Amino acid sequence: MLEDMLNKDEGKSMEEIAEADYNSKLNMKKKEEEYYQQKMQELGLKPVDRLLKYLPEASKYMKKGITFAHQDFEVIAKALANNEPFAVISGLSPTGPLHFGHKVVFDELLWLQKLGADVFIPITNDEAYVVGKSKSLAESRKCAYEEVIPSIIAFGFKSEKTKIFVDSDYKDIYNVAMDFSKNITNSKIKGVFGEENLNNPGVFFYRGAVQLAQILLPQLKEFGGPKPTIIPVGIDQYPYILVSRDIAEKRNLIPPASIYIKFLNSLKGPENKMSASDPSSCIYLTDNPKDAERKIRDAFTGGSPFASIQREKGGIPEVCSVHSLLNYHFYDDKEAQSAYKSCREGKILCSECKKNATSLVTNYLIEHQEKMKKAKKNIKSFLLDTPINSIL
Amino acid sequence: MLEDMLNKDEGKSMEEIAEADYNSKLNMKKKEEEYYQQKMQELGLKPVDRLLKYLPEASKYMKKGITFAHQDFEVIAKALANNEPFAVISGLSPTGPLHFGHKVVFDELLWLQKLGADVFIPITNDEAYVVGKSKSLAESRKCAYEEVIPSIIAFGFKSEKTKIFVDSDYKDIYNVAMDFSKNITNSKIKGVFGEENLNNPGVFFYRGAVQLAQILLPQLKEFGGPKPTIIPVGIDQYPYILVSRDIAEKRNLIPPASIYIKFLNSLKGPENKMSASDPSSCIYLTDNPKDAERKIRDAFTGGSPFASIQREKGGIPEVCSVHSLLNYHFYDDKEAQSAYKSCREGKILCSECKKNATSLVTNYLIEHQEKMKKAKKNIKSFLLDTPINSIL
Repeated sequence: MLEDMLNKDEGKSMEEIAEADYNSKLNMKKKEEEYYQQKMQELGLKPVDRLLKYLPEASKYMKKGITFAHQDFEVIAKALANNEPFAVISGLSPTGPLHFGHKVVFDELLWLQKLGADVFIPITNDEAYVVGKSKSLAESRKCAYEEVIPSIIAFGFKSEKTKIFVDSDYKDIYNVAMDFSKNITNSKIKGVFGEENLNNPGVFFYRGAVQLAQILLPQLKEFGGPKPTIIPVGIDQYPYILVSRDIAEKRNLIPPASIYIKFLNSLKGPENKMSASDPSSCIYLTDNPKDAERKIRDAFTGGSPFASIQREKGGIPEVCSVHSLLNYHFYDDKEAQSAYKSCREGKILCSECKKNATSLVTNYLIEHQEKMKKAKKNIKSFLLDTPINSIL
Repeated sequence: MLEDMLNKDEGKSMEEIAEADYNSKLNMKKKEEEYYQQKMQELGLKPVDRLLKYLPEASKYMKKGITFAHQDFEVIAKALANNEPFAVISGLSPTGPLHFGHKVVFDELLWLQKLGADVFIPITNDEAYVVGKSKSLAESRKCAYEEVIPSIIAFGFKSEKTKIFVDSDYKDIYNVAMDFSKNITNSKIKGVFGEENLNNPGVFFYRGAVQLAQILLPQLKEFGGPKPTIIPVGIDQYPYILVSRDIAEKRNLIPPASIYIKFLNSLKGPENKMSASDPSSCIYLTDNPKDAERKIRDAFTGGSPFASIQREKGGIPEVCSVHSLLNYHFYDDKEAQSAYKSCREGKILCSECKKNATSLVTNYLIEHQEKMKKAKKNIKSFLLDTPINSIL
């Protein structure tokens, strides 16, 4: 990367190159901040900071401003205050092992489970197949049981408050989807998802009905009827929440609340998020330590190409994939603040951070993979098999 | 009706009125003949008459030209000649009791079962609901078990060669539908069904995938793999057959063959077919004899408003709903020919035919309803419950 830069910048002085690099990173930082600010305003979401004092315990992501916005969290706060049941739901398309980006969402689910939520986790092998991310329902289903679910269990969920299901095996979800589909029009679905993203009848039904059935499932009679429900998502998923709230109202259910989490950046830089389909963008929770080390070594940082200049000007941790990884997953509030400061002041160089990250990540991976092995023997106790008869 | 006609035709002579009526009926006859002729040509279907000599036993509807056209029946004839397995499939949306129009299709299914076919009968309560013919999945499902399936069993199917399923209960069909949905595009589905008929994601998925899954189900591994399949339908359903053949080819299955049955006319006249949603158009197999008698009394006929003129000019049995009913369901070939001749020659009047029909229909209804009562205790042995694991 440095080489590329040097080739491109042939003839320029070291200071000029460093200045251009610094400015480009400042620009990235500004762009990201503006993106989230603008989206919040556009969608009428509220900042989470005012919530913190109402919660018995805020999530670490809320405290750090990573979970930064919400819609209707008040209904959850009220359920908490009154000790009433509530649910959290978050689905996942099984196309490969989980990575640290996924872990963020599951950490929020764990936090909500500790606060008392019933956790629903649909594993959408049908989606993986119909959108073309898997070669077959079978391939994606296999991935669900062999890679995804063991990893989820390894995070530490309690089986008695966790309901995981794989769509192809929990076929009742299709009856629920058929049932709700009468409360949506195709034109609404096309407006939300874009017709170009709905190119076969399976995708159309998945996005336009199955997904909504999953979101509203915890409110069916079989699970105790209407109840506050919360969905932790990335801000790009706001439209789906919107549709589910619309249907909830039509069916006398409680419109789901949502919290919005800032994406964990790709290892290649802040323009993209960690993505399972690009192995060099992410560290899988099943990566072996050698691969993880290599990925961190090659990761995009907020530092300068020149150590001397970084010591002088400091780095920009906001755009640094290594700082993000550490901040999201390994630092407590104080450590995060201290690391931020050291970087900004040029007191710590990227190589040190990378060494630190390698050690923390490696230890985590070894431990997680050990837990996954045990989890594989324990899958059944987490699987939802409640028949949905109330709509038939 | 006669009164209406007389009012409208005030000032005209009896002969003039009769002449106009006769000509209007001749015109109906011509229109119907042209419709079927033109459709056959347009769709490239073949007439069935050349098939008759290849069949161990032709169906009564084939012999009478009611089942008048086919596509690819040769693959079924070949399976018959080689004593190889084949399947027949015909679905039904449960929105009320069956009527004599439905019986036509089931008679063809029975004939094919006698020739050795495995009979698959999807009862599509999901379709009934998503297209708006039922208030809920539950209402339509209840109708399936209480009205539709007992009637089907009462027709005389053998449980060991009959696989009936209600979509909401045979949820594996949705996995098959998801699987096949990748082999179709939305634009194809819209072209075939018309976007205006696909107004919610449930209808879209039903028509664009579930229906096709039902048609191709008998060819899955669980039922012995690819095999000749035949679908008896009305000519308006040709497009669905087309799509299913397209997918069959993409999936290395055998494109389904089809036979085309002329609709049993509405009791109100040949412009419409018997329709469950219009009680005066049809005789339900659950009607009590008094209702049946009344419906036959009020039925549209091919005769003249004036007996004297009918004796002179004869009737037009082709457009007569009473003659059709008798010809489809109660007359053998000879009786049908003789009744046709008597009518054409004016030797028999509508009142006689109606009396005859009333007696035959009443006896049939009493017997059928008796059989339905018994059938209700025997539903389980007809229900398909084979899990579809080959695609997972």
